[in-house]
Amino acid sequence: MAQVTLDTIVSLCKRRGFVFQSSEVYGGLSSAWDYGPLGVELKNNIERFWWNEMVRKRRNIVGLDAAILMHPKVWEASGHVENFHDPLVDCKECKARFRADQIDLSAPCPECGAKDSFTEPRQFNLMFKTHLGPVEDESTVVYLRPETAQGIYVNYKNCLQSSRLKVPFGIAQVGKAFRNEIVTKNFIFRTCEFEQMEMQFFVHPSEDKKWFDYWKAERMEYYRKMGIRPEKLRFHQHGPDELAHYAKEAVDIQYEFPFGWRELEGVHNRTDYDLSRHSQFSGKDLSYFDDETRERYIPYIIETSAGLTRSVLMVLSDAYDEEELENGEKRTVLRFHPLIAPITVAVFPLMRRDGLDTYAQNLEEELRDHFNTFYDESGAIGRRYRRQDEVGTPYCITVDYQTLEDDTVTLRYRDSMEQVRVHRNEVVSAIQQAIREYRRVGT
Amino acid sequence: MAQVTLDTIVSLCKRRGFVFQSSEVYGGLSSAWDYGPLGVELKNNIERFWWNEMVRKRRNIVGLDAAILMHPKVWEASGHVENFHDPLVDCKECKARFRADQIDLSAPCPECGAKDSFTEPRQFNLMFKTHLGPVEDESTVVYLRPETAQGIYVNYKNCLQSSRLKVPFGIAQVGKAFRNEIVTKNFIFRTCEFEQMEMQFFVHPSEDKKWFDYWKAERMEYYRKMGIRPEKLRFHQHGPDELAHYAKEAVDIQYEFPFGWRELEGVHNRTDYDLSRHSQFSGKDLSYFDDETRERYIPYIIETSAGLTRSVLMVLSDAYDEEELENGEKRTVLRFHPLIAPITVAVFPLMRRDGLDTYAQNLEEELRDHFNTFYDESGAIGRRYRRQDEVGTPYCITVDYQTLEDDTVTLRYRDSMEQVRVHRNEVVSAIQQAIREYRRVGT
Repeated sequence: MAQVTLDTIVSLCKRRGFVFQSSEVYGGLSSAWDYGPLGVELKNNIERFWWNEMVRKRRNIVGLDAAILMHPKVWEASGHVENFHDPLVDCKECKARFRADQIDLSAPCPECGAKDSFTEPRQFNLMFKTHLGPVEDESTVVYLRPETAQGIYVNYKNCLQSSRLKVPFGIAQVGKAFRNEIVTKNFIFRTCEFEQMEMQFFVHPSEDKKWFDYWKAERMEYYRKMGIRPEKLRFHQHGPDELAHYAKEAVDIQYEFPFGWRELEGVHNRTDYDLSRHSQFSGKDLSYFDDETRERYIPYIIETSAGLTRSVLMVLSDAYDEEELENGEKRTVLRFHPLIAPITVAVFPLMRRDGLDTYAQNLEEELRDHFNTFYDESGAIGRRYRRQDEVGTPYCITVDYQTLEDDTVTLRYRDSMEQVRVHRNEVVSAIQQAIREYRRVGT
Repeated sequence: MAQVTLDTIVSLCKRRGFVFQSSEVYGGLSSAWDYGPLGVELKNNIERFWWNEMVRKRRNIVGLDAAILMHPKVWEASGHVENFHDPLVDCKECKARFRADQIDLSAPCPECGAKDSFTEPRQFNLMFKTHLGPVEDESTVVYLRPETAQGIYVNYKNCLQSSRLKVPFGIAQVGKAFRNEIVTKNFIFRTCEFEQMEMQFFVHPSEDKKWFDYWKAERMEYYRKMGIRPEKLRFHQHGPDELAHYAKEAVDIQYEFPFGWRELEGVHNRTDYDLSRHSQFSGKDLSYFDDETRERYIPYIIETSAGLTRSVLMVLSDAYDEEELENGEKRTVLRFHPLIAPITVAVFPLMRRDGLDTYAQNLEEELRDHFNTFYDESGAIGRRYRRQDEVGTPYCITVDYQTLEDDTVTLRYRDSMEQVRVHRNEVVSAIQQAIREYRRVGT
């Protein structure tokens, strides 16, 4: 297994249409990225995989999609207006700006080398502000949400009533959030605009530990199911010093990125902090009444909060592989799990003539009902395989002259490069079976 | 067919978990709405239907997902900084604010009745502004994109190169856009935060008319395929006075909402306006070179721009029906096309005992691989049917005592209320067939 560098991934992402720098023709916008033709499919597939595992397959979890713009009181209640700050310092000489907690304030400026040049640290709130309506004053300020979780808390009663839910239950959401980060880095790992996949699980206060442990295990299992290499995943339990003010217990799921172990997801016991605060700030009763036990209480919340954009980078890093073939050629292959690969099946005619192309096109159209497909008729067949390997397409089908005689095609597996002859009528079931039985081969 | 009012839909949406007012516990935020458990499934299904029709089923269209925050130069080039204004006036007496083009400026104030009380009209830009980084000055201004289209134009070369596309080709995108509308109304029809489904099709300048007509027809066909009643759809061709500054020809697809005929989608011939402007403002060559004809030119763009959030309201309005049953009872039914219904199949045990519940739960779990399912064991069976009718679930399955003997279940069709007995092993194929052959019954 080649040790992949971030540069290699960034370059592949641009060349093959996974991720482009935002507004690149204008010199780019720092820390915003656009998902290209393959990137958007990959991201959507990860989102759908998460939604299937967290919502569709679970009887006690429902979905939600709250707006990005919310009432500003929400962010007072959540504590973001008061606490969501970074301490910043400027160098008086070169005007460079730093996070005070990330540099040595008694050392010279890392940019220009000036000594004693830093301003006093000042607090900078990370929420993006804008104004609703034509008047720009304090009364019209709204924020771009810095997390999706609060949209779930303020809608919890509406969900409860409309879906007739009973504790324990969960509300899941995928959506964008925005943080005015001063230091963005590592490609799409930390950006000002990002997507979260969050599930908030509402439990009886006496059962918080049980459910925290349940979700901790479930969420790790989720990554394994997605085909991520287990040795690249680990838990990081928060010590008392690391705990956020709302959390009673917290664990991160970390992945070993090319730039080291970093957080992929957090599982938090947020206690009754959020609902109590919203109850206090809104004056609304946000307690839950249990019909059977006749007990009224504020539920505790166990949160599983994963980064979707971060997951895209994780999946790319994890899938990346290079290997030397028998003929000495090198091939780059993305070993995506078939359920998240941007293209599931590519169909090629051996030649662009003699009806092979028409046959292949018809076959590709038939397969669209079942898979995300791609048709390619240009270049030597070996080169077409290489191109699909490089974007992680798990299955390729080639239509050749024998096909015209007996309606069989070549089905080629990405990881093993094995090729088998399959009847046209059995292509769908052969691929469906291969997806069900998929195990990563190679490193 | 009952004439449905907007109030009826708003009330159903809240009660059954389609759409909630944003931040409702804080008194709501004007013009922002949250999609509840059923609403998010409905919205996602519409998005997926569009993506399938526009991207997956077409060899010459690829997807994209550009960031909401873009380089501010983009909006200079697009003309939004200069032209995206509404003229506003204030009443000096009561401070009410109006769009100058929507009231009679020589009449008394519609709010307080004061005469000659209006200020001079002033231009108000509809883009939401914020600042990237800690300094709030002109140099750090960025906008929340007021449309998704520009993200496609500035990425067109990246898409072209990474996906080896040739003219004619299209780039499709679904995403949020934001407009600081002073007058928002009609529920989710016009809101400050909304979602668009846009496809930009790049053609040779000599073929613009041909492709405009093609997409006009295709897009109307799309709505029919989605099950929308044809008599509720019409074209509205823009006269010379209505055309936007960038458009050579434009047609709206309109739907008859409870509040009248309104735009659902626009099909526009934008000529080479956008690419020329971005070329000019960025200094980059955005021309296209045709390998075969050796011709270099700026492609013309035919745009199909549909509202996703608006489509949700359209689909709800179109699906809503009330009918009187033989027993005199009234039923409310949402006649969603099965491909977009939030729940495809609901499974009920006749009784919550004798193993009927376990049987039904197992069956429901099996069906999850194929459909979006729902399990309900509470209340009389007739009441459970009514509840599913009201949220538009096309198929219900009931497990009863006979099931325990011969493994057959009752399959009930929403529109006709017909019930048939089906073997458990044939439930999936029976429903798949019903979806393929679906025709709306009733009005």
